[in-house]
Amino acid sequence: MKRVIISKFMAPEIIFGEGALDQIGESFLRLGANKVLVVSDPGVCDAGWVEQALTHLKSVDLPYATFFNVTMNPKDDEVHEGAKVYQEEECDAVLGIGGGSSLDVAKAIAIIVSNGGSIHQYEGVDHIRRPLPPIIAVSTTAGSGSEVSQFSVIVNAKDGNKMTIVSKSLIPDIAIIDPETLMTKDPALTASTGLDVLTHAIEAYVSIVATPLTDVQATNAIRLVASNLRPSVASQTNKEAKNNMAMASLQAGLAFSNAILGAVHAMSHAIGGRYSLSHGEVNAILLPYVMEYNLMARPDRFQDIATFMGKDIRNMTQIEAAKASVSLVRELIEDIQAPKKLSEIGFQDKDLTFMSEIALQDACMITNPRDLTVEEVKSLYMRAL
Amino acid sequence: MKRVIISKFMAPEIIFGEGALDQIGESFLRLGANKVLVVSDPGVCDAGWVEQALTHLKSVDLPYATFFNVTMNPKDDEVHEGAKVYQEEECDAVLGIGGGSSLDVAKAIAIIVSNGGSIHQYEGVDHIRRPLPPIIAVSTTAGSGSEVSQFSVIVNAKDGNKMTIVSKSLIPDIAIIDPETLMTKDPALTASTGLDVLTHAIEAYVSIVATPLTDVQATNAIRLVASNLRPSVASQTNKEAKNNMAMASLQAGLAFSNAILGAVHAMSHAIGGRYSLSHGEVNAILLPYVMEYNLMARPDRFQDIATFMGKDIRNMTQIEAAKASVSLVRELIEDIQAPKKLSEIGFQDKDLTFMSEIALQDACMITNPRDLTVEEVKSLYMRAL
Repeated sequence: MKRVIISKFMAPEIIFGEGALDQIGESFLRLGANKVLVVSDPGVCDAGWVEQALTHLKSVDLPYATFFNVTMNPKDDEVHEGAKVYQEEECDAVLGIGGGSSLDVAKAIAIIVSNGGSIHQYEGVDHIRRPLPPIIAVSTTAGSGSEVSQFSVIVNAKDGNKMTIVSKSLIPDIAIIDPETLMTKDPALTASTGLDVLTHAIEAYVSIVATPLTDVQATNAIRLVASNLRPSVASQTNKEAKNNMAMASLQAGLAFSNAILGAVHAMSHAIGGRYSLSHGEVNAILLPYVMEYNLMARPDRFQDIATFMGKDIRNMTQIEAAKASVSLVRELIEDIQAPKKLSEIGFQDKDLTFMSEIALQDACMITNPRDLTVEEVKSLYMRAL
Repeated sequence: MKRVIISKFMAPEIIFGEGALDQIGESFLRLGANKVLVVSDPGVCDAGWVEQALTHLKSVDLPYATFFNVTMNPKDDEVHEGAKVYQEEECDAVLGIGGGSSLDVAKAIAIIVSNGGSIHQYEGVDHIRRPLPPIIAVSTTAGSGSEVSQFSVIVNAKDGNKMTIVSKSLIPDIAIIDPETLMTKDPALTASTGLDVLTHAIEAYVSIVATPLTDVQATNAIRLVASNLRPSVASQTNKEAKNNMAMASLQAGLAFSNAILGAVHAMSHAIGGRYSLSHGEVNAILLPYVMEYNLMARPDRFQDIATFMGKDIRNMTQIEAAKASVSLVRELIEDIQAPKKLSEIGFQDKDLTFMSEIALQDACMITNPRDLTVEEVKSLYMRAL
């Protein structure tokens, strides 16, 4: 039989730039919306972005209902509660505005209102049968990439597990990214979400299903993070740096939505929901350890990463250059004073064997370039403790 | 008032790789098709690709009708004739299979069957009001980029003008690219379509509406053409080179569909339909002359192009490097023995002032980096004669 080697690539319509929020109203009209459920969280509301979004719905006379009870590492109950509001208010479209949590809940609500049942039924790849209502995703943190991705990650409140839901129908119809919204992030959030972007780009670049279409996005995202994350953390008003980090987030999102991720995300999902840890911080901490472990699977690709981060590798062997990529990431983490150990963010040596087993089951582990056993995952957790 | 600087980016779902043709049937089922109009031209039929596509429709029990009367530089009559077949046969989806001509006609048929009237009414930007039936585009020449673009170019049979129709709804639902289909192109067609890819990538890279999202695609396309077009012309069975040219075509298509084109395409549209010239050949001939003229508008970008084509520019001034990009393109054209003058392909010194006026009206001229007058366009035509 003929071997089939096929790359698939999908992206939403993207509207990127200063003032892009203004396009919300018109975009919903274009999608035929009559009443919009606006999904967000209290932090984004406080920053004033939700209010601004609502103005743009009002300006085109589009009625809306609101659901602002999204939390960090959002739970199944929040999804079902939001879906109830959607139905009671007779909405027919969803606007997610915020970081990954708000966007993931907006997508999950769209699943329930069109496919029924409970969100747990949709965990895994391609379990969504009926078309979703129109979704617009407005990303206000340069981080999650959820605005362009086919992922929604929701915590099972009962056992703390993060359920990864993967389906093409979760790619929003329109992604709106306005770099001005990044100005309201504090330095710590800028650092952790920025390192999350780097993690997306690096895991997508070394993924076993990476293609030239995802490589070009991942490559540029790594370059942009390497030269813009420090300035972006250093100043909340450095417009150029914020613009570039927003673009990096978008490109990393396009890369990982299509090339999927790896062991960092699998391991982060296993502990993040259970111990209410910041997704960006956990990723940032695990990233260099997992890179160190993975690099011998794809020294060529890790060598590339070193060059994307600005290293002159002409006098190095391939493996030296590959290892340099890890030092460069460590130096970046050091400079922006992001946490370096899981213990610093409140994670203690719990049942690591159990966590490692959970991590090995995660959908993101399938595309990791190097094989792992439970013992190896456990040893990575221990090094990062 | 706040200045709005916004980038927009759109792409179809992309299925790329050897054996990708197999996905045609399943893809139409996914889009809810009940009967498909298959649009192609006699050359593609002869190569056997249409027959293979039909097999994949049969294998999922999907009925179809056929319209194979597409010509090079396709005319309005062909569109109306195809639309009649679609309606008489009660189709509800369209498959375009072939080069740019077949795909552009497939898109234009989709416009007429859903929006009515004559294709002339839709010339220009955004004149399509009603949603189109599902379209799948299978590209069999690494060239046009029509499989991912929001363009359809149809010749007005009355005056020979090329009508450029631009609308997001012209982006196919799914683009299928199987590099195996490139194996049947002869060296001359491989050369001209390959140079067309280079023209797309270069015009998109220097376009006044280029963005980082289009730049990464254009950059990689230029790199791929620079290192794969010669081997691809040299051997019809060099699989790696064909694969890379197919990817270059796809990435150049994503770049220009979103960053639009420039003076080469505007000037090519003005004469191509009128004198039945090969679109790829005209572009290839005009490209170096237009580059020479444009480079002082964006020396930084033309310098980049020289590096993408492999030039070591460390000991050059910016303008020297920018000029080197033109020599590199000339060298490539020389090596693959593509025509270098319009007179070689049968175009004579007709009413060049009139052609120049037409070219200045073309939608592609708006995004050209350097301003042009009628006299300047005319002088470019004369140099290329």
